[in-house]
Formats: sequence, structure tokens, C-alpha cells
Amino acid sequence: MNIVIIGGVAAGSKAAAKIKRLLPQASVKIFTDDTHVSYSACGLPYYIQGNFKDYRALLVRSVEEFKKSGIDVFLEHKVTKIDPKAQNITVHSAFNDFYVPYDRLIIATGARPFIPAIKGVNDFKNIYTLRKIEDGIAIREKMLKSKKVVVVGSGYIGLELLEAFVHNGLHTTVIERKDRIMPAFDPDMSEVIQDSLESIPDRNFELITGESLVEVTGEGENANIIKTSTGRELETDFVVLCAGVVPNAELAGAAGITIGHTGAIKVNKLMQTSIPNIYACGDCCEEPHLINGKSVWVPLGSTANKEGRCAALNAAGVYTVFEGVLGSAVTRCLNTTMSMTGFTEKQAEEFGYTPVSATINKHDMVSYMPGAGDITLKVVADKATGLLLGGQAAGAIGADKRINSLAAALVGRLTVKEFANNDLTYSPPFSTTIDPLLDAMNLLQAKLGC
Amino acid sequence: MNIVIIGGVAAGSKAAAKIKRLLPQASVKIFTDDTHVSYSACGLPYYIQGNFKDYRALLVRSVEEFKKSGIDVFLEHKVTKIDPKAQNITVHSAFNDFYVPYDRLIIATGARPFIPAIKGVNDFKNIYTLRKIEDGIAIREKMLKSKKVVVVGSGYIGLELLEAFVHNGLHTTVIERKDRIMPAFDPDMSEVIQDSLESIPDRNFELITGESLVEVTGEGENANIIKTSTGRELETDFVVLCAGVVPNAELAGAAGITIGHTGAIKVNKLMQTSIPNIYACGDCCEEPHLINGKSVWVPLGSTANKEGRCAALNAAGVYTVFEGVLGSAVTRCLNTTMSMTGFTEKQAEEFGYTPVSATINKHDMVSYMPGAGDITLKVVADKATGLLLGGQAAGAIGADKRINSLAAALVGRLTVKEFANNDLTYSPPFSTTIDPLLDAMNLLQAKLGC
Repeated sequence: MNIVIIGGVAAGSKAAAKIKRLLPQASVKIFTDDTHVSYSACGLPYYIQGNFKDYRALLVRSVEEFKKSGIDVFLEHKVTKIDPKAQNITVHSAFNDFYVPYDRLIIATGARPFIPAIKGVNDFKNIYTLRKIEDGIAIREKMLKSKKVVVVGSGYIGLELLEAFVHNGLHTTVIERKDRIMPAFDPDMSEVIQDSLESIPDRNFELITGESLVEVTGEGENANIIKTSTGRELETDFVVLCAGVVPNAELAGAAGITIGHTGAIKVNKLMQTSIPNIYACGDCCEEPHLINGKSVWVPLGSTANKEGRCAALNAAGVYTVFEGVLGSAVTRCLNTTMSMTGFTEKQAEEFGYTPVSATINKHDMVSYMPGAGDITLKVVADKATGLLLGGQAAGAIGADKRINSLAAALVGRLTVKEFANNDLTYSPPFSTTIDPLLDAMNLLQAKLGC
Repeated sequence: MNIVIIGGVAAGSKAAAKIKRLLPQASVKIFTDDTHVSYSACGLPYYIQGNFKDYRALLVRSVEEFKKSGIDVFLEHKVTKIDPKAQNITVHSAFNDFYVPYDRLIIATGARPFIPAIKGVNDFKNIYTLRKIEDGIAIREKMLKSKKVVVVGSGYIGLELLEAFVHNGLHTTVIERKDRIMPAFDPDMSEVIQDSLESIPDRNFELITGESLVEVTGEGENANIIKTSTGRELETDFVVLCAGVVPNAELAGAAGITIGHTGAIKVNKLMQTSIPNIYACGDCCEEPHLINGKSVWVPLGSTANKEGRCAALNAAGVYTVFEGVLGSAVTRCLNTTMSMTGFTEKQAEEFGYTPVSATINKHDMVSYMPGAGDITLKVVADKATGLLLGGQAAGAIGADKRINSLAAALVGRLTVKEFANNDLTYSPPFSTTIDPLLDAMNLLQAKLGC
């Protein structure tokens, strides 16, 4: 049995390890155009920040370790074609192109940074994106020699880099094309996040919204001036583009595999694509949303791991269902934790619900305790049924605790009324007597009139 | 309409404030033998520790503030009798005894420290319990003049005081009569907690288990030697008894109100006692367990607040149900967070389940992040149905997050299989790629064979 896996970061390496354990006699090969395999890409902003010194801490499993467990990893080997009829792939290496036959193919090609159409964006060496190990190394090296940086985009990676650069003493400018930062959140929560960040005294950064980068100019290899859509000009030592990601679905699409409306590969709950014996998992494919079963594209490392495992099990003949995602996510930027799960109010509307929301602002622990901070918590429910649909929290670190509690409620399809009965833990260093999440539920219950 | 409330810490003060808002024309009176009203008793160990300087930070609402909103508070007024036929109570003050009529009576008499039958325990001034504001003030004053202390009991308050004393430089000895510390947890988790505490380098405390205090001796007003059941003798500057609490249910019992098998006042889900027009709430009464509906006695500040609110609503004629508790609780002692919800394995057995449990030990965030710590997480489910029954966690602060997620699952009556689909937030400073809670669920699923 020939098992071939394309891509080897989170989903691909997880799938390889799992299927080798399930089918010890099978040949398992990973092909990747990357220079590394099996690493924690989510940790790159923290490597750049200097939270740990050696980037190798990010490497989960080396080529040698894969080899020892009987898995062959081919780095810098780009798969250029899938032939489902012949059941083989075409691989391009520095030396030659060759065919590799498969009985089961697992596509884990991931996603790549979106490069906005900006004049000059491809002309300079000091314009970076962050996706791979070498990107992280290059950005850290550049950062250590720089004083000013422009970050384009204010999503998760943009804000994680803002923290990294500010902690390293760089004056940092974040430029967000939309009218608010962290656009994955609802507008009111984006405002809470921005207010929180801008409340930092003597801050060495700026958040510019509603402007896009239109041109980069410079001398020789290095850009040093960026121009925005309002005519603003900024000097900078380097630029990092964090304008989102796109799924690497072209290879699959060219092979006739169905691509979903999100642009990512369509799979069923067994991680099977539209073509027999071909599976997909991780950032290159869509997943069902746990709340309404609709296909969404939420490329995250935690999901990639689960999907890789599920694809391997099914490819090995062990029936396993991946039920889907809630879009749960968290990050931190300086003084602000941001966490969300389920639908935002905006998403809920787009999916046809009539959402009702309640927002409260409260200490995350009893106010007399040292370290007590504020959290703003927004919960969203369906007006017709009272079912919980999602929540967003921002502020002190306790924000994330409440969102994970809510995630369990969403999986359980709880109504606001049911959740309001919850018995959450209380002690002065951990919560307020009535937890902020229960306050939010009580307020939402009142709004729903239930 | 005369509303009379007996007791004014958490449940009583909450009930008073709520009912006055609901019935602005009613006369609302609080009688308490305490010297303070409406305070955060849970914060006393942190006041003793010195986390904040002024004990008045613990006071939620003063007598004057109650007065302003039309509520009369009678401090140091002990209610000695309830006459349900005459619908009045007898109040004893420093000056006289008098009757107060009621249309609705809310009993919120709380609980008091259990005093073990130890020779000499009542003979000395430097043997303390911790329940009221003046206890906290006295213990802090004594601590500041002392070098050695013995804490009797290793439950929540015992361990919170251990932290307080150790942080203030006192050599602290905790004596626990049972064979393990923190006996609310399962034995294996008690061991985890003890190992974690004893791993602290150069620790200035001892945890002695399986020994009880049998005698206290001293000179004049102060005890200075304690003797244990094994003949051990310890010198000490003072002693704090943290050997549990008992409900103040005698007053209600003497009036003919039904007392439950736990020793606390029996109430229905409207917080009504067995006698018309008399309600009870807070630490003096039982509550139904959310998992099986059986009466339990879990005296906690968070529950007291909810019950006080519910009692007030029903006493005012607004039908409101208090569904019950999960026994969710959390505390911290030095390097160790301890959190639990639902049934322990031991409780599950006592309630007739055949519990299956899974325990995992894992980092609470990705191991390359600074500050990553270990948590041990035990989850318990019912073998017959796969229903989740509870969980316990100990270790780094992230332990509490997982327990609050589990609490939501318990309220939703989720099975292990359902919870294993959960999408919890991930980012290196907040979790591991597969959250420890999901690892525990996967292990439990394997054990259950589902």
C-alpha cells in the first residue's frame, strides 16, 4: 500500500504519523516544497519576539525522526500534478521530475499569505510575509537591525507581530484597509480591542484603519517609503504583509477535485475529496461549521491536527467522522487577550439568523485582587430559539476562559436559559462572585424575554 | 408588606437588595449577629496575605448604603426564635429582646466553622477560626507578630491560609486528619496537589496527613504547644482551625422547618422551606445537584448570591427557579491552582454510577512558551451512558479554564463523545495544539470504547 501525503506542516505530518501507526506495512511518503517539516507555525511570532532563543523549539519532529518510524520525507520537492486516473503524482525536485504512485493520497498543502496588489510590492527584499520557518528567521534578523516597521493587516498575525516588534523597541505602524482592526470580530468588539491597545501609556505604535497600502518605493534592494490610499507617506525599515491567507487548492483543482465556495478544497466529514482515494485536510480544505453544518474555511493549527488525524484514520479504513469547527480562536497583543467562538453577530446575520446580543464589561476577578483587569464579553443568541450562537471576549487574560466555557455550550447546543444555570468556579483570584459570563447570559435572557 | 431577612453576608444582602427593587413599598429589614453586613468572606485569606491593605475593600455595601435604598440593617442583633404561627421573630440586642413581625421571612444564617473536639481548644486566645471580618483582622495582626503557625485542615481555606502565611515568612504546618490533603478531590488528585506543593524548593511549610490534633497546651492566654494523634508535639505561635463548616440551621430547625439529610435547611427550587412564607438561601440550606437532582450541601459564595436572588424573586411573587449546582470550585495555593466541577470519581460511586475516569498530565500551553506549566486533568464519565460526570484539575493556572469548559458540558448533559468534538481556542500562550481537555476526552473515549 502506497500512502502519499502532500504537505508536512501540521495536518500532513499528523496524518503521516497516524497512518503509519495504523498501517505499519504501508509505504508512507511526505512531499513538501518547504525546507522544514512538522513545525509549529503559530509559534513564529513568539520566536520573532524572542520568547525563546532557538527556532528549533518550533520543530515537532525532524526528517530523521520520521525516517526512524518508517516515513520518508522529501523536503523541497514540489508536487506539480495529481493524476487521479493513473493514481500518481508528479514531483519536481532540484534535479529531476518524477512520478510517484499512490493507493491513498492525502492533500495537506496548507495556505499561503495573500499578497495585495501594491505597486512595488515584489521589487524589494525587505517586504516580508510570515508563514514558514525561514520567514520567521528572516524577520527576526531584520527586526534586530531596525527601528521602524510597517505591518499591513491587523488580524491575528498582524497583532501578534505588533506585540513582538513593540517589545523589541521598534516603532510599529499597523495599516488596516478595513475601517477597524481585528475584523474577524464584530465592529463593537474591534473598537474595544483598539481602545484597549491605545490605552497603553507612551505606546510606541500606531493603528491606522480605513487606509490601504498603495505603493512601496525605495532604493536598491530595500523599500523605505510606503504610501497609503489617503496619500500618507511613511518611512520604514521594513514591511510585513499580514493581509490574510489563501488556500493552496490549485493543485487539487487542476486534478478535477471539487473546490468549495470558500475557495478551499471541498471534503466530506471523512475528509474525502470528490475523487476516490484522495483525502484533504488542514488549511487547504473547508470544514463544516458545528452550529449549522454549513461549509466554512477556518484555517487554524488546532483544526489541522484533528483533520490530519481523521484523514489518516479514514484513509486506513477506520471510519471516523470530523464533525466540524466553531471557529474558536484566541490571541494576545500586549495588554489585550482576544478570544472568540461560534458566530459573530455579523456572521449570524449572514447565515440567516436574527441574532440578539448582550455585551458586558466587568472585572475578570474580584476588584480588590492585585492584577484584576477588565474584560468585555459579547454573547450572541438566536432570537427565535434562544440558542446560543457565539461569543467574543477581549481584555484581561480571563477573557479566554469564558470563551472556552461558551464553546462547550455551543457543542452542546445550549440555549441562553440553560447556560444561565451554569455553576462556574469562583474564588477571588479567578472570578467575580457572579462570573462575567453568567452576567452576560442574564442580560441576554432579559433581552430575549425568556 | 414586612420582609425580614436573617443574615446579611452574601445571600442575605443580595436578597435584601433584590426584593427592595422588586417591592419598593415594602419594609425590608436585615437582622444579623455579625458586626458587618454585605462582605466578601472569600477574600479574607487574601486580606490576611496582604494582597490589599484595607479590609474595607471587602465590604460590598455599607449599612448607610442599605439605609439609603430603604433597607434597615440591624448589626449585632441575634435572632433567637422564629414563630411561624404568629409570623414573627424574636430578636436579641445588647439592650433588649423584641418581636418583629414578617409577611415573608428569608433565612440566610450561613454556616460557621466546625470546631473539632480538641482538649484545650477553647482555653486560649491564639486559636482562631476564619469566617468573619474581625477574624481576618485578628489573624493578620497575629501573623505579623509571629514566626510559626499551625493550620488544622487542608481544604480550601486551609490551603489559602497556607499561601498567606508562607508569603509572610511564617513557618507553616498544616495538619490534616484524613490521609490526604484537599479531601474534596479524589485521592489521586490530592496526591498530585501535594506533590506539586512539595516540589517548591526551600519551602517553609509542612503538610502532615493522617494525624489529628488532640491537645493544645500553653501558658496564660496563649497556646504554644500542640499535640497530635501520633504523639507529635509542635511549638507554634498560633493555631487556625480550618476543619470545615457546619450550616447554621438550628434556628430554622427549632421553628419546625424541615432540615435535610445534609444537616442544612431543606428548600425546593423556589428556595421555599417547608413552612409557608419562609424562604432560605445561601450556606444555611441545601441545593439540588444539577447532574442527578439529589440534595447536596455545597456552601459557596457564588451559589449564595444566586440563591439570595432567587429567594427574593419568589418572596416577591416572581416565579423563579434555581436549578442547582455542580459543586464547581477553584482555589490557588502558591504554585498550584486546583479546580473542580461535577462529581469526583468517589462521589459518582456513592451516587450509584459506575464511573470511568481518564487522567492526563500535559503542559497548559505550548512547551516552548515562557511560563508554560503542567496541569493534571482528570475527567469522569458514566460507563453505562458515556455521560460526563465531572472533572478535577491541578497545576498551572490554566487548570481552571478547562474546568469551566467542562462545567458548561455538564450543564448541557454532554457525553464524552459529544465533548470530544469541541473546538477549543488555540494559540501558543493559551493552549497546546490539541487542548489537554480534548486529550483527556480522547483517552476517556478509548476507555469507554465509544
